[in-house]
Amino acid sequence: MTAPAKRGRPGYDLETLLLVAVKLFNERGYDGTSMEDLSRKLGITKSAIYHHVPSKQELLRLAVDRALGGLFGVAREAEATEGRAVDRLEHLVRGSIAVLVEQLPFVTLLLRVRGNTKVERAALSRRREFDTIVTELVKQAEAEGDLRPDIDPAVTARLLFGMVNSLTEWYRPRSGSSAAEIADAVYKIAFDGLRLTP
Amino acid sequence: MTAPAKRGRPGYDLETLLLVAVKLFNERGYDGTSMEDLSRKLGITKSAIYHHVPSKQELLRLAVDRALGGLFGVAREAEATEGRAVDRLEHLVRGSIAVLVEQLPFVTLLLRVRGNTKVERAALSRRREFDTIVTELVKQAEAEGDLRPDIDPAVTARLLFGMVNSLTEWYRPRSGSSAAEIADAVYKIAFDGLRLTP
Repeated sequence: MTAPAKRGRPGYDLETLLLVAVKLFNERGYDGTSMEDLSRKLGITKSAIYHHVPSKQELLRLAVDRALGGLFGVAREAEATEGRAVDRLEHLVRGSIAVLVEQLPFVTLLLRVRGNTKVERAALSRRREFDTIVTELVKQAEAEGDLRPDIDPAVTARLLFGMVNSLTEWYRPRSGSSAAEIADAVYKIAFDGLRLTP
Repeated sequence: MTAPAKRGRPGYDLETLLLVAVKLFNERGYDGTSMEDLSRKLGITKSAIYHHVPSKQELLRLAVDRALGGLFGVAREAEATEGRAVDRLEHLVRGSIAVLVEQLPFVTLLLRVRGNTKVERAALSRRREFDTIVTELVKQAEAEGDLRPDIDPAVTARLLFGMVNSLTEWYRPRSGSSAAEIADAVYKIAFDGLRLTP
């Protein structure tokens, strides 16, 4: 996706442009950020931005596609794995946390998409597809007798990923816990519970 | 906070104005919504809005204060309760879910606040206070031997309320489960875990 670096040419490559745009979208909201704001932030003209992308919406599309690509990559891995659904669900939860941590600003943006534009509505539809994959795994794991059957699988899926997705709100890479430690914490709470049974 | 209804006077009272504003802020982002947008949505002039509130920021303050008032009300109840920390934590989780469901648009807005204005920064600071209350309860419950001690209490607090707060993203009042059913689901998953131990 990134154009080859142009030696000696001042300015930004698409990747840097995208990173700055995503940061700004996350700070001010996608609707609240204009190409004017972006050009001011980058210190380049709007036409220098349009040299890389035709529109603000295209920046959003590139950003949410990266997040969705990571998450669906993990979902495909989980679905391709042999064995019990509960293990595939564990793979999906741990893998999603790894994607969130690696692509934090991109997934943050994806989770804040509201559906005001075509790109946003497409992203929301892909998110619902992802939710369906999680719900199906929960259902299978219940049917296989590995997960408690007394909670609606769709509610379980939403709450489980509510925990995972909350990372975009509070996880900061250099603030102590590693991605693997967080994944362990989510796994322990969701699967075994917080209560210390004597 | 609401001015007495003015009989026969066309227009909106502050409460209705606030509800429409919060809906719009949630749809388009606070930064992405202007008083112009709001006046268009309401079909009244901007000066009719300024009759009720001096600024957009004041609408935000009223909205997040309502959400914070509900949540801190529950926190005070939990802190005033005698008995084990784990029971007070349960009270806080269940009570917070009730507030979320009752005040869904207000809490949704609170959770999307980014810190670009004074009102937003004050709200973020109150949210951190709330997180500290949760973390302290988790610590106490660990010290009392009721919760597993192998997860950082701050991480536990964040993940627990990640699950609770996710309701603002997916819970719709008329979509099946009641607030009490959702509270039970959160409680079961977080405290006892999803795994069905044979």
